[in-house]
Amino acid sequence: MTSNNLLTADWAGPAARFTESGSATDGDASVKATLRWLADRQDAHRFEVTRIPLDEMGVWSFEAGTGNLVHRTGRFFTIEGLRVRTDYGRVNEWEQPIINQPEIGILGLVVKEINGVLHCLMQAKMEPGNVNLIQLSPTVQATRSNFTRVHRGARTRYLEYFLEPGRATVLVDVLQSEQGSWFFAKRNRNIVVETTEEIPPHEDFRWMTIGEVQQLLSADNVLNMDARTVLSCIPFARPTTAPRPGPHGSFNAALRRSMSPGEYALHSMGAVLSWFTECTSRYGLRSDRIPLAQVRGWHRNRMAISHVEGRNFSIIGTRVEAGNREVVNWTQPLLAPCGPGVSAFLVRSLGGVLHVLVHARAEAGHLHGVELAPTVQCIPDNYRGLPAEHRPRFLDYLENVPVDRVRFDTVLSEEGGRFYHAESRYMIVEVDDDIPISEPDGYRWLTVDQLTQLLRHSHYLNVQARSLVACLHTLW
Amino acid sequence: MTSNNLLTADWAGPAARFTESGSATDGDASVKATLRWLADRQDAHRFEVTRIPLDEMGVWSFEAGTGNLVHRTGRFFTIEGLRVRTDYGRVNEWEQPIINQPEIGILGLVVKEINGVLHCLMQAKMEPGNVNLIQLSPTVQATRSNFTRVHRGARTRYLEYFLEPGRATVLVDVLQSEQGSWFFAKRNRNIVVETTEEIPPHEDFRWMTIGEVQQLLSADNVLNMDARTVLSCIPFARPTTAPRPGPHGSFNAALRRSMSPGEYALHSMGAVLSWFTECTSRYGLRSDRIPLAQVRGWHRNRMAISHVEGRNFSIIGTRVEAGNREVVNWTQPLLAPCGPGVSAFLVRSLGGVLHVLVHARAEAGHLHGVELAPTVQCIPDNYRGLPAEHRPRFLDYLENVPVDRVRFDTVLSEEGGRFYHAESRYMIVEVDDDIPISEPDGYRWLTVDQLTQLLRHSHYLNVQARSLVACLHTLW
Repeated sequence: MTSNNLLTADWAGPAARFTESGSATDGDASVKATLRWLADRQDAHRFEVTRIPLDEMGVWSFEAGTGNLVHRTGRFFTIEGLRVRTDYGRVNEWEQPIINQPEIGILGLVVKEINGVLHCLMQAKMEPGNVNLIQLSPTVQATRSNFTRVHRGARTRYLEYFLEPGRATVLVDVLQSEQGSWFFAKRNRNIVVETTEEIPPHEDFRWMTIGEVQQLLSADNVLNMDARTVLSCIPFARPTTAPRPGPHGSFNAALRRSMSPGEYALHSMGAVLSWFTECTSRYGLRSDRIPLAQVRGWHRNRMAISHVEGRNFSIIGTRVEAGNREVVNWTQPLLAPCGPGVSAFLVRSLGGVLHVLVHARAEAGHLHGVELAPTVQCIPDNYRGLPAEHRPRFLDYLENVPVDRVRFDTVLSEEGGRFYHAESRYMIVEVDDDIPISEPDGYRWLTVDQLTQLLRHSHYLNVQARSLVACLHTLW
Repeated sequence: MTSNNLLTADWAGPAARFTESGSATDGDASVKATLRWLADRQDAHRFEVTRIPLDEMGVWSFEAGTGNLVHRTGRFFTIEGLRVRTDYGRVNEWEQPIINQPEIGILGLVVKEINGVLHCLMQAKMEPGNVNLIQLSPTVQATRSNFTRVHRGARTRYLEYFLEPGRATVLVDVLQSEQGSWFFAKRNRNIVVETTEEIPPHEDFRWMTIGEVQQLLSADNVLNMDARTVLSCIPFARPTTAPRPGPHGSFNAALRRSMSPGEYALHSMGAVLSWFTECTSRYGLRSDRIPLAQVRGWHRNRMAISHVEGRNFSIIGTRVEAGNREVVNWTQPLLAPCGPGVSAFLVRSLGGVLHVLVHARAEAGHLHGVELAPTVQCIPDNYRGLPAEHRPRFLDYLENVPVDRVRFDTVLSEEGGRFYHAESRYMIVEVDDDIPISEPDGYRWLTVDQLTQLLRHSHYLNVQARSLVACLHTLW
């Protein structure tokens, strides 16, 4: 295992300490051991998730008047309606159910240097929506309702490292959005703290190097969304070791330069910020919360609230029985997308520096309307039967891309605490002259270093783009 | 007039070109000429603003059902209700009227080098709420409804420099918030472009050096709010000339160092960002728009909607007759605060570098809840008759501060297009050991350079703090 260092979180490029994101050359054995441990955790706990009728969820019920789906305490989250009017895109007015979770939660990672190598304290965490139930999460993943113990469950382990001032050194601390089509104005605090204390891990927790964690990211459905977004916000700088030998030497060299401050970039940061401002300003986007009972174009039966054409997603009810959660049994609604998603970055070397084609994308639930998204982000099933011009740009290209262009291709889950079997295929595809340098309206080529700078602030990169940034780091 | 340069808008500190914000040593004559020109413009146009009953505004009326005050087109803005629940501050639940203006407008300044000196194209602009009607605004100050010509008036002059890609070089381009207690989620695009074209100014426009503009800022009610916020976003770096001699030599030297990247700062930028994230996350703040007719604690009569105790503000109706506006006659509602405001920065030299005591303040209409505000920001009349512990922190200190501590003290107007006679006293006060270095909860000492870095991004500094940053630059 090579040594890992985190860039300490200050802004000035010149002051940056370089980092190795962990090319775990001898890490395969420990990755296998981690996967065995994860399977053990799976076996040690008996989890069952059962779909139940929406009106048999006990503490969750439809509120009189609004028809909103609410928890008895009024806390956690609610399923409400949203009315959207916009001049962005092809569909300019619609209504939909949406998850409203106004509380800011914590996605917190504890890191510690052990034998000179930085380690992350990862959790084997069950979420009812995950296809495989248990995945790796950050150390703490808690809503405010969780950690203020509205449900009177056990206290959240290791939370004190994030809440007690001075207990640990803060390396990353930034609010970031989540799925703008499914959440209304949701944001979570992404935080990484470094400790020097001895922390014996509880049996559901395990210390791993960043190299191991990155290797695990290329396995299907192992690293959960919250782990990916926290990892993406760590300002890894260019690795100091030489590029890995192999068939993608020039790709690796271009990625290495792309991670470095001060290297060539097609657009200056000032131009990028101005373009982002212009994209945000150009479109009117008005999202008004409305009672769920008033939402047009969706129907509700005993088992689900669904789109009349079967598109987008459904809201379903579940009962969960588990052993290691804060509350042993509970019911909750989940959002079930109508099919698997695709999130892909097209990347291209320009002047020897890898550039990522990002898309300024308006989503109804985003606080600012527009955030930077993957080149392609969609649920392809949503476009079945629609004319070709309705299909998202670059989707056809992606579906027919030669396999030797694909640098990353893994199925990953979206937040299993709110979404049911929401799997997406995350892809990084290296393109050449078949994708021109000249950018379509709303797209820009940015370097990894530019994305890293933007990630120090809220609401520039959406959660799918952040996942892909975490994936990019594994390619070093 | 000494030479002026703008810092070109890129991020990296080391690449920054230094700037002189313009110590206009021989500028008094030209400032006087500008004030005469402004008075001429006042005379050239006949403006009358008359208070009229709320239900006699013609195109503005109370919507059936909601009671919201709306324009016939549904555009411009509406007066609606807001229900606020929060665990921030002393009052944890209230309702109020609020201005909802979801469109993103443009506050745009054209600059140009003339005879080697950077000049700004300023406008003599009438706004009905201004006590003196005409003040200096940026080149363009337009809502989207304005420039898409919903009211079928004249087109907005010089707008093409901001909307035509490549027409001018963009120096600043960032969305910023406005008054969070009076606007719901309002944001405007603050943009500065540099041109090399010959632009003969229309009679209501005038080229001025930045030095002149800054001198005019210390005159009461001359530079309007929109001019101040655009100026604040210009990343002026440390002047290259020697400090001005005079009684405040050490203040000037500390300010000069405070404007420089790489100088001492009490907190690292990483620590500042983490503190800001923590402040934003700590409090629950939920603002729900409700029908104006449902707002409790306010009453409506023929002439106004007012708070039952006469606090905060009223909504009034006005008729405007003017000669040089896009539409010659119109009616509109305005928000009239219950008294003059105070916005003050306490500043202090720490390690020879001037630090500004900013306050992380939650305001109900802010998109993110919390933004950085002046050390003191309030309408003192709001606290008449309340117990001492209800008075804002540092207000008593400010009201009794010795005059030799005051570095800036000018009455300035808030946005005259929405607010009626909304004057605030803007103050910068240099403190010493009477204000301890140790910060109260929710306050931090930041350098001017740190504020400048934050101003490259949206929603860190509120509009009052931005005005004060523009005022700070004049003290050089």
